Amino acid sequence: MFEIGGRRIGGGNFALIAGPCTVESREQLLETARAVKDGGATMLRGGAYKPRTSPYAFQGLGQEGLRLLAEAKAETGMPIVTELMDVRDIEAVAEVADVVQVGARNMQNYTLLSEIGRSGLPVLLKRGLAATLEELLMAAEYVLKEGNEQVILCERGIRTFETAYRFTLDLMAVPTLQRLSHLPVVVDPSHAAGRRDLVGPLSLAAAAVGADGIIVEVHPNPEEAICDGPQQLRLEDFAEYASLVERAAQIAGKAFSNA
Amino acid sequence: MFEIGGRRIGGGNFALIAGPCTVESREQLLETARAVKDGGATMLRGGAYKPRTSPYAFQGLGQEGLRLLAEAKAETGMPIVTELMDVRDIEAVAEVADVVQVGARNMQNYTLLSEIGRSGLPVLLKRGLAATLEELLMAAEYVLKEGNEQVILCERGIRTFETAYRFTLDLMAVPTLQRLSHLPVVVDPSHAAGRRDLVGPLSLAAAAVGADGIIVEVHPNPEEAICDGPQQLRLEDFAEYASLVERAAQIAGKAFSNA
Amino acid sequence: MFEIGGRRIGGGNFALIAGPCTVESREQLLETARAVKDGGATMLRGGAYKPRTSPYAFQGLGQEGLRLLAEAKAETGMPIVTELMDVRDIEAVAEVADVVQVGARNMQNYTLLSEIGRSGLPVLLKRGLAATLEELLMAAEYVLKEGNEQVILCERGIRTFETAYRFTLDLMAVPTLQRLSHLPVVVDPSHAAGRRDLVGPLSLAAAAVGADGIIVEVHPNPEEAICDGPQQLRLEDFAEYASLVERAAQIAGKAFSNA
Amino acid sequence: MFEIGGRRIGGGNFALIAGPCTVESREQLLETARAVKDGGATMLRGGAYKPRTSPYAFQGLGQEGLRLLAEAKAETGMPIVTELMDVRDIEAVAEVADVVQVGARNMQNYTLLSEIGRSGLPVLLKRGLAATLEELLMAAEYVLKEGNEQVILCERGIRTFETAYRFTLDLMAVPTLQRLSHLPVVVDPSHAAGRRDLVGPLSLAAAAVGADGIIVEVHPNPEEAICDGPQQLRLEDFAEYASLVERAAQIAGKAFSNA
Repeated sequence: MFEIGGRRIGGGNFALIAGPCTVESREQLLETARAVKDGGATMLRGGAYKPRTSPYAFQGLGQEGLRLLAEAKAETGMPIVTELMDVRDIEAVAEVADVVQVGARNMQNYTLLSEIGRSGLPVLLKRGLAATLEELLMAAEYVLKEGNEQVILCERGIRTFETAYRFTLDLMAVPTLQRLSHLPVVVDPSHAAGRRDLVGPLSLAAAAVGADGIIVEVHPNPEEAICDGPQQLRLEDFAEYASLVERAAQIAGKAFSNA
Repeated sequence: MFEIGGRRIGGGNFALIAGPCTVESREQLLETARAVKDGGATMLRGGAYKPRTSPYAFQGLGQEGLRLLAEAKAETGMPIVTELMDVRDIEAVAEVADVVQVGARNMQNYTLLSEIGRSGLPVLLKRGLAATLEELLMAAEYVLKEGNEQVILCERGIRTFETAYRFTLDLMAVPTLQRLSHLPVVVDPSHAAGRRDLVGPLSLAAAAVGADGIIVEVHPNPEEAICDGPQQLRLEDFAEYASLVERAAQIAGKAFSNA
Repeated sequence: MFEIGGRRIGGGNFALIAGPCTVESREQLLETARAVKDGGATMLRGGAYKPRTSPYAFQGLGQEGLRLLAEAKAETGMPIVTELMDVRDIEAVAEVADVVQVGARNMQNYTLLSEIGRSGLPVLLKRGLAATLEELLMAAEYVLKEGNEQVILCERGIRTFETAYRFTLDLMAVPTLQRLSHLPVVVDPSHAAGRRDLVGPLSLAAAAVGADGIIVEVHPNPEEAICDGPQQLRLEDFAEYASLVERAAQIAGKAFSNA
Repeated sequence: MFEIGGRRIGGGNFALIAGPCTVESREQLLETARAVKDGGATMLRGGAYKPRTSPYAFQGLGQEGLRLLAEAKAETGMPIVTELMDVRDIEAVAEVADVVQVGARNMQNYTLLSEIGRSGLPVLLKRGLAATLEELLMAAEYVLKEGNEQVILCERGIRTFETAYRFTLDLMAVPTLQRLSHLPVVVDPSHAAGRRDLVGPLSLAAAAVGADGIIVEVHPNPEEAICDGPQQLRLEDFAEYASLVERAAQIAGKAFSNA
């Protein structure tokens, strides 16, 4: 268990981290931030740097995205979770991020992990799409060995033969990682599903299986999102979603931790 | 939605199917049957014929196992779910089974599926460990095309690269199958996990994700079980387990259906 | 090493088993049989009973297909390899088959394996699409324990996340199975690839890796084949194909075994 | 097709890249370099920076390793293939490397790929252990879009359910990648196998399937290797190995390209 901007995670405390996939504009980010805060979210997520399979796809707003996240944090008071891809951006990201996210593609980017370890910033480390739990724990060890113990593990779906969904969410990873380590384990239902109608059921399942939190994508207008629109929840559905997730988390003995 | 021995499954009705992996003796079966009935189970499971990877492993009590299942049914009134492996045993199994189980290894045993289709008996069809959802639905079609519409689909874990557990339970299959077909979908958390401490969390997750039921293994003395002891729940823990599962099912809008 | 209709397999002897996916007609089968024999094939394959994912797909000519295979055998003298799916057809199949094929879907159909074991007929046992090598060897054990030692193992592609081909041919299985057992190991490049242009390169790789044989699909007119047309080699290309395979097998120390 | 230090790769030219997993000492590297050159290798491989799953494992000799590689290159004239992990080391690596290797874990490290693209150095890009061929080609695109067209793709085994070997070598990737792109495709049999006795058969298979080259690990004394000893070929076996690989490559229409 540790604390991020006044919110606890682990040890019975559940984190609901919500926000857009990508920071697209001031309006989009602030509208989302206010709504997810009102709906019960405990932290705000949003990508300024986006890893993309194709070099020709939108790569994020970069510095401008970080500036907008700082503004959202100032207004709502919510801690910020945002991704770092290039070790040379660490100082800029550290100015606004309360939690640095390391994406699945970078789970074994040891240079990045070691530098974040040295920075002392809390990390949300996503499992690689074909990484064993042992490899995930070993990747976390690259951060821990620098004396930084604020690592949150994140299950976000693994690659299997099934083509009916983008990835296969592995919820067995949650209790297994909790047994093997003391680190909090959260679940990302949005990227696994790739489609909105699965995000609700998977979030309830994640909370019921005992996850220490969920990181979920929400957008004021998913049809016009720059990336991953089909998997982002609608703002107007968020409050009811959060309340169901809270009930499922209670069955597993967890309570939302708001500041 | 359809009815099996007075219990409904599908359409908001949740089936909790519990019992030993294998029928081992009269005492073991009857003690388990009474306890799971008292704990809230809606049907009784138990294997008389057991498919085993090795030809040298215990293959089940066979006819004697069926006789004991008939006795447990007479005493408790619970419908019986038991596996059929050899098409030549269908008449003997049909005398006691309310639901014929087809195991993962036989999901594409078309001879077996067609004969069960013709028998008119309800079927619980387990997903093969590397079967796509489309292949599972096509296998169900071998039963349906004989005019038998009482097919229950069962997710029981798929094979992935992860070696921390026997199989990876794919809970995304539940809402996806429910969207693609009208058939009820149940989850087997015991075989996926292979270890007792995961069965509880996975069962809550299965109920929360919206499954129409769970088929779970319970044993009065798992340490002495002939097979799969480590994954069977203890009888004394069953009532509390069932009550948590019921709470999780309620969040997904389902109620237990007892006669 | 053992002998099938005068052809040896194992111990330095390479079997080239060729023929159509499905027996479609007298002309199609006899034309193919003559051409593959002239091209260097050592046995003739052809399906009379076809396991199909959908119950509405063509299921094979059945008894009529067996009769045509008997005719092709009488004319060319080549041993026949054909699939058995339903244990109740074993006597009919045994009348014409020199080798009974058990398909990937039936690898763990223990009823079928035990009966074939008792029949004493040579078996070509395909690896299930998610079966470990240990499970394949255990399935073979169901035949061997009946006193029938003429089992040929067959690698035909496993299911992975890659969608660029139907299955992923696992050629590491060949030397590994040969190290773990004394049984000959053949490779089916046709089903893994699902496309003709890959069948040649994969066949050379299979021979070079040390396989004891190849089972390959050939059709006089693949565009009009009832099933799997795109993966079947053209008759006119077979002789050149066989001669390249023979060169690759020689590097691995194997020679074609013709009667 | 392009040229690296006078050796061509692609378009009928086969590269045999050999050397130790890790540069351990002056003696180890020079002895290996001389022997593989005499045996027929066309380029020398050796790791100065090693990505390791555990942060507590040996991480390579670093700068000292690069210096030794420069010495081996000066003595033997062979082009050097060595791995780059940290973008901040690119200048030091560029001083000695003729080909920069990007490991499987860094296949989607877009920062690294873009910088190597800008450097103009030839790249050997390994497929991630769960990367689709499309993702591999997209990763190559991060290099190509900087105007650097000297990209060699490398199949090194994917992660599957099979536990009998470390990875499953996917040789279907070779002809498929060659059809989808104009880039040369080489195979690494050492990492897939993880054991020496498989490296020979897999190398023959790779050459027979039409690969444009092989990158293989060789050590003068594998029992004392710092890492991956069990998979490294023995120096004394290399010449015979290379001559068998050459025969297999010839069947696929390729010739070794020595300066």
